[in-house]
Amino acid sequence: MNNLNKMDINRTHCLHMRRLLIDTYQERVVYMRSDCQAYQSEGFEAKSRVEVWRGEQHIIASLHVVHSSSMLALDEVGLSEAAWSALGGADGDTIQVKRPAPLQSFSSVRAKIYDQRFTSKSISLVVQDVVAGRYSDIEMAALITACSGSRMDVSETIALTEAMIAVGQRMQWNSDRVVDKHCIGGLPGNRTTLLVVPIVAACGLTIPKTSSRAITSPAGTADTMETMAPVKLDIPRIKRVVERENGCIAWGGAVNLSPADDLLIRVENPLGLDSEGLMVASILSKKIAAGSTHVVIDIPVGPSAKIRSLDAAHILSARLVAVGSALGITVQTVITDGAQPVGRGVGPALEALDVLDVLQNAATAPDDLRQRALLLAAKVLELGQKAQPGEGMALARTVLESGAAWHKFQAICEAQGGFRQPPKAMYTHEMTSEHRGRVVAIDNQVIARIAKLAGAPKVPAAGLTFHAPLGSVLEVGQPYLTIHAQSPGELAYARSYAESQKNLISLQ
Amino acid sequence: MNNLNKMDINRTHCLHMRRLLIDTYQERVVYMRSDCQAYQSEGFEAKSRVEVWRGEQHIIASLHVVHSSSMLALDEVGLSEAAWSALGGADGDTIQVKRPAPLQSFSSVRAKIYDQRFTSKSISLVVQDVVAGRYSDIEMAALITACSGSRMDVSETIALTEAMIAVGQRMQWNSDRVVDKHCIGGLPGNRTTLLVVPIVAACGLTIPKTSSRAITSPAGTADTMETMAPVKLDIPRIKRVVERENGCIAWGGAVNLSPADDLLIRVENPLGLDSEGLMVASILSKKIAAGSTHVVIDIPVGPSAKIRSLDAAHILSARLVAVGSALGITVQTVITDGAQPVGRGVGPALEALDVLDVLQNAATAPDDLRQRALLLAAKVLELGQKAQPGEGMALARTVLESGAAWHKFQAICEAQGGFRQPPKAMYTHEMTSEHRGRVVAIDNQVIARIAKLAGAPKVPAAGLTFHAPLGSVLEVGQPYLTIHAQSPGELAYARSYAESQKNLISLQ
Repeated sequence: MNNLNKMDINRTHCLHMRRLLIDTYQERVVYMRSDCQAYQSEGFEAKSRVEVWRGEQHIIASLHVVHSSSMLALDEVGLSEAAWSALGGADGDTIQVKRPAPLQSFSSVRAKIYDQRFTSKSISLVVQDVVAGRYSDIEMAALITACSGSRMDVSETIALTEAMIAVGQRMQWNSDRVVDKHCIGGLPGNRTTLLVVPIVAACGLTIPKTSSRAITSPAGTADTMETMAPVKLDIPRIKRVVERENGCIAWGGAVNLSPADDLLIRVENPLGLDSEGLMVASILSKKIAAGSTHVVIDIPVGPSAKIRSLDAAHILSARLVAVGSALGITVQTVITDGAQPVGRGVGPALEALDVLDVLQNAATAPDDLRQRALLLAAKVLELGQKAQPGEGMALARTVLESGAAWHKFQAICEAQGGFRQPPKAMYTHEMTSEHRGRVVAIDNQVIARIAKLAGAPKVPAAGLTFHAPLGSVLEVGQPYLTIHAQSPGELAYARSYAESQKNLISLQ
Repeated sequence: MNNLNKMDINRTHCLHMRRLLIDTYQERVVYMRSDCQAYQSEGFEAKSRVEVWRGEQHIIASLHVVHSSSMLALDEVGLSEAAWSALGGADGDTIQVKRPAPLQSFSSVRAKIYDQRFTSKSISLVVQDVVAGRYSDIEMAALITACSGSRMDVSETIALTEAMIAVGQRMQWNSDRVVDKHCIGGLPGNRTTLLVVPIVAACGLTIPKTSSRAITSPAGTADTMETMAPVKLDIPRIKRVVERENGCIAWGGAVNLSPADDLLIRVENPLGLDSEGLMVASILSKKIAAGSTHVVIDIPVGPSAKIRSLDAAHILSARLVAVGSALGITVQTVITDGAQPVGRGVGPALEALDVLDVLQNAATAPDDLRQRALLLAAKVLELGQKAQPGEGMALARTVLESGAAWHKFQAICEAQGGFRQPPKAMYTHEMTSEHRGRVVAIDNQVIARIAKLAGAPKVPAAGLTFHAPLGSVLEVGQPYLTIHAQSPGELAYARSYAESQKNLISLQ
């Protein structure tokens, strides 16, 4: 029998890191040669999870195995961009690669899949491991799926929300009444935030609004705002903007208010999953971390909106109010009509143009966007005690029509770094009606998908303008939709998809 | 407005493929330079799903983006090993990279997550897309999670099983009664198949057995058989072996009986999810595709086996019988004791040695393995109408004791390509007891992990022999486990893990 001493057993392998300049999105990948000693003696295999140490720093990553000598030297470990930026350091730094400890918290995800409930403790450990980068993409996908549909009860949602707040930054304000508004989304073009914030801020309420970029949609509020002003503000900058102008419209991702949510979203997004529990935790964790005390939440309902029935809207509403109340904030929901896109533009710059028309009281301004924004601003003004119940609408309208809102919007843009005009796309294509008839239905998801295929939100000028609201009458050959793109390929792709979708609009 | 003609819209980018020798396990990955024209004009991004065409062949893959010129030329697309072997072709072949059509079938997975049921039609489209490689790893993870726990009802499981059969090969037999046996697994050393097949075949029943290699365990039946005879048989070869000897023990992976299952397993495995519906569909799709009409299924139950309670075993049993019946095969289950490893050896060659001892009626043959095999053979003989109910055991014992089973086993090995002796490991280490006491519990999962760290199943001679069954009394210094390895590193790694596991065996 061979006798091995402790030195052999505890030996580690000295390796050197190398940036391979491979972009794997946010997945952390490391590359090792199959003939390297560490790979062989540790018994790794392709897709093993490994722990990479550089001094006191470490990350967990997925292993891709290289069977050639041209990419890496024998003692080199390659890092993908995400792994590189997470680990820090420089080419040639000494690193060690080991097996990670088993991911203990995943056993509670497995238990959840088998119909057991999360506890405060177990969900908090899951969220900590997610934020530490210990979950692989497929483990994240399993976690999100296990929490989707109606699988999270109120107490699990409260626990998840608390756990998400605990791992992020938190903002403090001097005001005892800090308002906010949020929209559940799913309605292309619904950019009311860019109108509500200036109206409300012009009335003196504190509204430190952080918005997200698009998750599954062709534009998020932050994407749209970014076509007019910088949105990547850190917390001190947000504080300065809000102190000067009462409000801001910043990108939430820059301030790490809910880092767990940001990570979950990168897997929710390609899966196209929106779950009640995750949605409530995602929204409220960010509002609470932003220091809000009173929040109005817009829930659009429509056959192709994110929420499709009044029942579902009422359930979500009750969940938001209950979880908010348990965590000490006042939530008021407004259920609105989500049957069709709001305004004309879909895509960051095209939506910004609609917003500017409303702010400037242009004759051509889309009235649906204007009315929705006034309604929500009215609710926020009433909740913020700047108007008596029932009198918020009149105040909001005055502020908008007087130009005070437009003035405030420009001031906020200036405070955030300077106002700019939204860009225009290089290529457009008009879709024309093949039949005559009245528009009786519009598929929002097809609309959103066309805009995304055209390049939105990554290409700010891309998207579409929609010319055929419900009830309008189309003649044969009349344009009902214009696709905007910055490359012929994207224009062609969006067009070919649009042409294949018979349910885009229904005529009668 | 720019006017694009059809040529522009349908243009494609001519690129050349290159094998990068990067092993990403079964995930298909392609690598493109961020400054290449196709990448830019198609609006791809890191982790985009892309469709790669080589002539009429195509695959769907995940895109990793390379920001350096050293790995790839501007017009080159790199392929991971899985992408390379799926696409075929040679370095330099012209290929095209496009956006894939949206994955329509995933909408029914999403609906399933939101508590709707799969239909025959929807699950069949899902399975077809899985087999066509259209599902990304995270989509597979969401699918598996959505089907796990108790989320698949009987009719969904039937539909899934049918869909899995439909996409694979299928075997036909002249006999109207084709028997099979299967074990749910989770019990190290449980190699009854290698005994049941020769006993049953010696009695004249048709038993075309296909077995899997290890998934999460230190040895699969196919791995163990392979230490004694070739198992990579194609369907014509299986037919010839079975026509000559009534039975075979072949590797199922070589015959593509359930390609969907093979793909699902690669994501189930790292998630550690075993779901009832998926398990039933996995087992029965393979049995039906193999042409079996009567199947005996062994369900070992124990605290560290795959099935941990009698309740769970009864639920699984009922599901197997119901789904089998709906699909026209007779399933009989046998719930057995899964409290400890079976036989002495764990690992391909070491388990083979136990099997040979039983077949040769050696005095040292492990009696537990022998008794389990006789019980299952008896059930198969009765189900196959070679014995009256209650008389199968006597027949099985006679066939084994007379040497007829050993004779048949050798004949099957010869027909499969020739019998050989299992290999022996170069390095061994004995673990000895530090205390005196009676063995009252054994952790099967720790046993399995030690054998895997020693190199099993990749190294056929590696694994362990276990000398301390439940109830046996250990003296201080008495060996209870011997680790077998082919390299000092693996021996050390397995040993250091074994020494750290206080629950490996519990003494009283």
